[in-house]
Amino acid sequence: MDESRNPRRRPGGRSARVQDAVAQAALAQLLDVGYQGLTIRGVAQAAGVAETTVYRRWPTTNHLTAAALLKLTETDNPLPDTGTLDGDLRALLTQIVALLKRPEVLRVVRSAAAIDHDEDGSVRAGKSAFFDARFADAKLIVERAIDRGEIASNTDAHLLIEALVAPSYMRALLENHPLDEELVDSSVRIVLGALQSVGIPKRADSS
Amino acid sequence: MDESRNPRRRPGGRSARVQDAVAQAALAQLLDVGYQGLTIRGVAQAAGVAETTVYRRWPTTNHLTAAALLKLTETDNPLPDTGTLDGDLRALLTQIVALLKRPEVLRVVRSAAAIDHDEDGSVRAGKSAFFDARFADAKLIVERAIDRGEIASNTDAHLLIEALVAPSYMRALLENHPLDEELVDSSVRIVLGALQSVGIPKRADSS
Repeated sequence: MDESRNPRRRPGGRSARVQDAVAQAALAQLLDVGYQGLTIRGVAQAAGVAETTVYRRWPTTNHLTAAALLKLTETDNPLPDTGTLDGDLRALLTQIVALLKRPEVLRVVRSAAAIDHDEDGSVRAGKSAFFDARFADAKLIVERAIDRGEIASNTDAHLLIEALVAPSYMRALLENHPLDEELVDSSVRIVLGALQSVGIPKRADSS
Repeated sequence: MDESRNPRRRPGGRSARVQDAVAQAALAQLLDVGYQGLTIRGVAQAAGVAETTVYRRWPTTNHLTAAALLKLTETDNPLPDTGTLDGDLRALLTQIVALLKRPEVLRVVRSAAAIDHDEDGSVRAGKSAFFDARFADAKLIVERAIDRGEIASNTDAHLLIEALVAPSYMRALLENHPLDEELVDSSVRIVLGALQSVGIPKRADSS
């Protein structure tokens, strides 16, 4: 790699620009034609890159879907940093509820839910890529709260964020109950209430 | 209807037997061919009743799916009554996790999640029929805990049960994290912890 020919205007240079263009193109296709209509060829053409370039990094449409979802969430939804755990959790869940209320986003989440991730390694990888990245982001909220001394240092960030967001996903996907400000409020209260009393500790055997 | 020819061996007589046969047939078909393969004609034939009889009570395959899911959950999973809220919540969630780990059950739940329930009134009715009935059952657990004086009388049973089960549904449908005993344990602890500290109260404006 000859870095001198690619001065780093942004982290990663050309590679990052390709990733960005592909994720943008995948997102545009996904919101337009849905998961069933997404193709690697179509995304490559829209992104202006070779199909082989897409295949190398995103071997399946599931990987493209994950990249597109990440693009969507990262673009519109910077990780909240309000100064308190209460504020951060409320802001994060408000973002997620707003996303889940967008029909084109919900269509993609429904597609993801419909796929059996035990059946196909690439699906598992694609779905994981999205949720792992989102949870990794959200863990920063928990780490900052630990640093501020708001919650115990052994708090399990994954369990905490999962408890916060799961009722909203369940309402979006399965229930006929409103995704509203009351749900945001009660979800935040339940998680903070658990943290206040018994805590949400990591298991002894998990790192 | 000549009730004298059909002594009530079980509540509801012939009507209840028809409902039972249809739900059984729908469940068998659903587990066998999946949601996409479910037809009213097929269910009517398997149940030994006229198609019009099925249409009258279950106008769409979504209604049949709801009936089948209820049959499945009711048959294998009597509502726990262990004498404590902790025991009941743990038993209920253990049942649900066991169901979600059965591939044929998960396939049906995935199908339900995939369908846009805002788009089609019959889908909404079908999905609601299932979740409303399940939540109505689960509320008995909460009511008994209130009667025993374990929790506040204004506890919101729906929010409580939703907080308990939602992380398991989320793992089953979207995440690549294990549906295991640890998740059951942490979900129960979070809900009980919230009840201990801030409670999970009904909104002032909800009945």
